[in-house]
Amino acid sequence: MNLSKRVIAMQASPIRKLIPMAQQAKKRGIHVYHLNIGQPDIETPKVFFDAITHENIKVLKYALSQGEPELIHSIQNYFMKDGIHFDDDEIIVTNGGSEALIFALTAICDVGDEILVPEPFYTNYNSFVQQTGVIARPITTSPSTGFHLPSYEDIVSRITPKTKLILFSNPGNPTGTVYTMAELEMLKRIALEKDLFLISDEVYRKLVFDGEVAPSLGMIKGIEDRSVIIESVSKRYSSCGARIGSVQSKNKDLMKSILKLAQARLSVSTINQIGATQLYLLDDDNVAATRDEYQKRRDIVLSELRQIPGLKFETPKGAFYIIVTLPVKDAEEYVKWMLSEYNYENETVMLAPAEDFYVNKSLGKSQVRIAYVLESVQLKRAMQIVKYSLIEYAKIEKNS
Amino acid sequence: MNLSKRVIAMQASPIRKLIPMAQQAKKRGIHVYHLNIGQPDIETPKVFFDAITHENIKVLKYALSQGEPELIHSIQNYFMKDGIHFDDDEIIVTNGGSEALIFALTAICDVGDEILVPEPFYTNYNSFVQQTGVIARPITTSPSTGFHLPSYEDIVSRITPKTKLILFSNPGNPTGTVYTMAELEMLKRIALEKDLFLISDEVYRKLVFDGEVAPSLGMIKGIEDRSVIIESVSKRYSSCGARIGSVQSKNKDLMKSILKLAQARLSVSTINQIGATQLYLLDDDNVAATRDEYQKRRDIVLSELRQIPGLKFETPKGAFYIIVTLPVKDAEEYVKWMLSEYNYENETVMLAPAEDFYVNKSLGKSQVRIAYVLESVQLKRAMQIVKYSLIEYAKIEKNS
Repeated sequence: MNLSKRVIAMQASPIRKLIPMAQQAKKRGIHVYHLNIGQPDIETPKVFFDAITHENIKVLKYALSQGEPELIHSIQNYFMKDGIHFDDDEIIVTNGGSEALIFALTAICDVGDEILVPEPFYTNYNSFVQQTGVIARPITTSPSTGFHLPSYEDIVSRITPKTKLILFSNPGNPTGTVYTMAELEMLKRIALEKDLFLISDEVYRKLVFDGEVAPSLGMIKGIEDRSVIIESVSKRYSSCGARIGSVQSKNKDLMKSILKLAQARLSVSTINQIGATQLYLLDDDNVAATRDEYQKRRDIVLSELRQIPGLKFETPKGAFYIIVTLPVKDAEEYVKWMLSEYNYENETVMLAPAEDFYVNKSLGKSQVRIAYVLESVQLKRAMQIVKYSLIEYAKIEKNS
Repeated sequence: MNLSKRVIAMQASPIRKLIPMAQQAKKRGIHVYHLNIGQPDIETPKVFFDAITHENIKVLKYALSQGEPELIHSIQNYFMKDGIHFDDDEIIVTNGGSEALIFALTAICDVGDEILVPEPFYTNYNSFVQQTGVIARPITTSPSTGFHLPSYEDIVSRITPKTKLILFSNPGNPTGTVYTMAELEMLKRIALEKDLFLISDEVYRKLVFDGEVAPSLGMIKGIEDRSVIIESVSKRYSSCGARIGSVQSKNKDLMKSILKLAQARLSVSTINQIGATQLYLLDDDNVAATRDEYQKRRDIVLSELRQIPGLKFETPKGAFYIIVTLPVKDAEEYVKWMLSEYNYENETVMLAPAEDFYVNKSLGKSQVRIAYVLESVQLKRAMQIVKYSLIEYAKIEKNS
């Protein structure tokens, strides 16, 4: 009665695996600031709930497998603001960005095929490749270059006859790095020369700071048939629990394959599609306000981090994460210690150890990912607790 | 730039592939009665929507990956009514019964493993095995025995060293067949002797007629570690668009593997879980009313079918489907003709050709599945149109 080896081989989520320790801390009466997970505290726009209430549904029917036309038109409208046009059949609505990625990987790759992913990367990419039987090969990036892409030669040297695509997030989770147009043009050159697809995970697009913008892969001309964009309402519209994402591509054959996968699971939640339709129609001011709030929080985190000796980090340009190299041997041990032994005035902080964001885990051994998803006062307090805890932890490491 | 062969090999849904022809018919002004798809017209219980409205959510957060505790307790309550106990960690909430099945198959089977499925079976089982790299081997059942299971010897003869499990739906889609306790006991014997898992798709449970009951696999003692139950609110509570299902098993290792798959896709829609919690708490009268309505419709369908010469069918005992052998050479050609050429007073009917419910497609060549999901007056009218159309079609087949 053996279980599937492919699932047994899957690692537990580094963002979620330490949650039982946080629950234990709470039972001991310790308040835990959660900077480990990308769950924003910003209010979901009210139009989402209003649209559902006003619909006055009698029979909660299956939606269309490809998504409801109203939502598809609303997503089209979002992309058109940047001059990116998708036909109706070039957008398929999914259960969050997660399902969009699983569908794209399954529709492009057979078992044993390889994909390239700049590391550190969103840890669940690992789960998606393992469950679809695909092998992830890392393109290593470094904190010293702000996690930007390495050279053309470096990337090309990692391509084998089995490589089918390059997957990346832009802005990046867990790095906050925003790729430049020049980086996307380099990926275009590689995709054309090596006959690859590109999958751009753009769920954090528009959450970009200091007046900069993150170019969408949809803006790169001449590779429309190789480009796949992953979208979601979760972060930009603070609607993680809606589980509404989508996959976009102008490759009609690919979309036909993805439609088969969508038809097999019948449809995505009808009422969440009604709500999400309104989110994509929100005016730009709404997203700008969200972005400004995250920029303010980023600046608080940076300001606090600068007061802690021995850290290494770069200024993130987007999303709401920062990777920080700590003056510790093993960041996961430090995070566990924070949850199980440390408290400052009955409070502690949960961070995400970064090693599981890497294929080459040793590269992230001393790193954590901080998600700045709490409002300013709490965030500042949490960062101060991190500062105090590191002083304490240094003494313990020295004596061990 | 090749796409995945596994997805290209997937067949289009037999329930949905002819929908463009139905849309064309509607454009010509023809009214189409849809008896092709299991989309009930019965109203969704109001408690579903009320619960969501009353929750007054500010931030639509991720739910827990395994499902919200309130919904899990509500599902526990549903099973406890039949004396079936599941611990909190023996239930995982999924995006409909579809995801529950994909998770169970992925967590049990590696690529190349085989499963046994009584045919005809729910056509999307084919899609799920293809996308997970598993091979479906049919256990052939026959209309002449009401699609009940063949002998122990017949089933055992189909088992190979690669066979990992037997998957079945009870009550059955597309047959409406309800397995007896003796049939489940036979499957238990085979599972124990041949070291297999059993997956029982029970999304139609409680929709059983003539005072009979469909036994749950959870009632069979001594194979708790081999038994997996698939659940969904879609049919029993007429809430297809909620996409709330669940997978149940007392095999803790299996549930740990499934939890990893659940964590990778983060969570299931938060508000649909709030609504679904109330559905599972509805009293038995509510489900009984739904069941009685379907029994009434089944009897209308049977009464109308008996007036049509040349048909073969058995009385279905559950769900809301019936398989009928028509006096035609090719049922799919007949269904297409109904949509593209035939009309009776500007009306026609869409049925599901049954051959794609089989691995051995020729067995279903002359069969259709009728879903009795319309209220009595419309259903009677639709069945009369089927009768008239068959008289017409017989003339055409004779002359061709």
